[in-house]
Amino acid sequence: MLIENKEWHTIWLNKETQKIEVIDQTKLPHKFEVKVINNSFEAANAISQMVIRGAPLIGVMGAYGLMLGLRENPSSSNLEKTYETLLATRPTAVNLKWSLDRIFQKVKDLSQVDRLNAAMKEACIIEKEDIEMCSLIGDNGLKIIQEIYDRKIIKNEKKVINILTHCNAGWLATVNWGTALAPIYKAHRAGLNLHIWVDETRPRNQGASLTAFELKNEGIPHTVIVDNAGGHLMQHGLVDLVIVGSDRTTSQGDVCNKIGTYLKALAANDNDIPFYAALPISTLDWELEDGLSEIVIEARSEREVTHISGLNDSGNIETVKLVPQGTHGFNPGFDVTPNNLITGLITERGICKANKSEISKFYKKK
Amino acid sequence: MLIENKEWHTIWLNKETQKIEVIDQTKLPHKFEVKVINNSFEAANAISQMVIRGAPLIGVMGAYGLMLGLRENPSSSNLEKTYETLLATRPTAVNLKWSLDRIFQKVKDLSQVDRLNAAMKEACIIEKEDIEMCSLIGDNGLKIIQEIYDRKIIKNEKKVINILTHCNAGWLATVNWGTALAPIYKAHRAGLNLHIWVDETRPRNQGASLTAFELKNEGIPHTVIVDNAGGHLMQHGLVDLVIVGSDRTTSQGDVCNKIGTYLKALAANDNDIPFYAALPISTLDWELEDGLSEIVIEARSEREVTHISGLNDSGNIETVKLVPQGTHGFNPGFDVTPNNLITGLITERGICKANKSEISKFYKKK
Repeated sequence: MLIENKEWHTIWLNKETQKIEVIDQTKLPHKFEVKVINNSFEAANAISQMVIRGAPLIGVMGAYGLMLGLRENPSSSNLEKTYETLLATRPTAVNLKWSLDRIFQKVKDLSQVDRLNAAMKEACIIEKEDIEMCSLIGDNGLKIIQEIYDRKIIKNEKKVINILTHCNAGWLATVNWGTALAPIYKAHRAGLNLHIWVDETRPRNQGASLTAFELKNEGIPHTVIVDNAGGHLMQHGLVDLVIVGSDRTTSQGDVCNKIGTYLKALAANDNDIPFYAALPISTLDWELEDGLSEIVIEARSEREVTHISGLNDSGNIETVKLVPQGTHGFNPGFDVTPNNLITGLITERGICKANKSEISKFYKKK
Repeated sequence: MLIENKEWHTIWLNKETQKIEVIDQTKLPHKFEVKVINNSFEAANAISQMVIRGAPLIGVMGAYGLMLGLRENPSSSNLEKTYETLLATRPTAVNLKWSLDRIFQKVKDLSQVDRLNAAMKEACIIEKEDIEMCSLIGDNGLKIIQEIYDRKIIKNEKKVINILTHCNAGWLATVNWGTALAPIYKAHRAGLNLHIWVDETRPRNQGASLTAFELKNEGIPHTVIVDNAGGHLMQHGLVDLVIVGSDRTTSQGDVCNKIGTYLKALAANDNDIPFYAALPISTLDWELEDGLSEIVIEARSEREVTHISGLNDSGNIETVKLVPQGTHGFNPGFDVTPNNLITGLITERGICKANKSEISKFYKKK
């Protein structure tokens, strides 16, 4: 998608250097920099330090990371070690495991000399599939937006559909297009008038930084709000639709997504506003049923709560402390939205209700 | 209450200088300073700039502000002008009007020479009443905490009651004791083991700064969380009770409080967790029934959303920008929690359900 009128992806294999390059997301929206990932150690760090983030993109980075590990040492023991190292970086992201498994299965029975090329080929396929998948999520989600848009009646005003989104499930969370934002990009390109309410999404503020950055560069009208404000906007008819992403989706359609998603789902439900999760089928964990009791939520560093970064008056990124000396924070990274609060799931294979029988139609259709 | 083991109030009349002094809350929790309020202009500024904040404290400041105005000029025209100026500083805070009206009614028929002393006397009474009222709210709320505490069964662990609160309805929002935090202080002093989940409460972060500062100085165990996290904690049984304040309460028991309160009420309701609002009867606006349609919510500066302040590494309070260049914010200051989500109201006259017939018993009992 566009950054200053030039098309970018979040990750790519540099054909000349054979190294991986990514957009460094830790400095956005204030500074735009490309970072080179030289080896599997740097790949693991790029995931754990959130240089790249977002479930689909983490999956692609994992695949390339395993490829880099095989370039360092194509032995089976190193393959297993690198697999484990990469998997441990973000335990909640189910399609990290999914993509690591794909590379692992592709190379494990090959001779050591053939492994690197096979891994590279498969990682490139995963990357391409991700783009295609997100584009399809966009096409499918566009139908929902179009339908609500067509239904909306406004007297004496330009028709605008207001969509609320949480965190960043945009193209920066994938290779391109995004998941929750893909339908928005498709709708914008189809000429619909949109306005996006962007939850800032504390503690890491991926909404205020990344989602706002994406929308601004694509020229889509948007407004940043604090995470507390969405319910009030819904009470007052200022939200027509909510679309969020999913890091992990259970077989019965519970959605594990960025902390705070559950609160917005409750408010959407209370105000009869459609609430959709947009997700690649790869985030489905068929082994899980009840997300609330079965998904272990990672507690991230309390420093993300007690401190925050932004641009100071001198134009430098600075971190400031928000709490008194001696006060601690607790930082669960995700929450689970039960399926009864979800209007539907937007996937690359179509839209379905959040229940096992509907999901299984897509899940089994490979 | 305690700051570094010394008892403080938030506001007082300095007997020697005859000026008003307050704790400057804009620099908390990082810097503790007392600010002198010399005249009615500074009183209005102290309210609008949030040097002091919190519905009850704003009321007391309003009363003293009107007194200062009468010292400058005791004419009826100046009385009216100062009344209007002070009232315009925070339109949502209903007991600002309530306290201004009290002073106004007390002095309007007096000769100009008698007005200052009468206003001073009445303002001192309002201040004392506020302390007594908050103490009674604390005593009444303690009964709820004690009951939940007694019922809670914990195997092989020390019994601890987990209370979640939003924003700062602590003693810094009143003269002393607080509203939502008063029951917590009373319970702590009664020897109950408490742990408080403190919503940071963006955009102004009064939870992370003021509530955490209060609890830390009183020695009450507490943890700051982002506003997104409370729902998740409730889903996992980590919250026994929610207590919030109220800036304005309708006759049917709808509560207008800091933005985000509604979302926590939805989550408490969804997880069968008692949700109480603690409030002085003076926040009741008997003219209002349906808070959602009748209360106009003030939109505050978008800069509160797009920027945040904290302590930098050099020990200075610094403001940093959170959004990309060109991105705007929207900043509704309050939301309305409908009465069906509220377990009960804790007032200085007792506890009641959030409905008109129960509230009217307290409201009429003067």
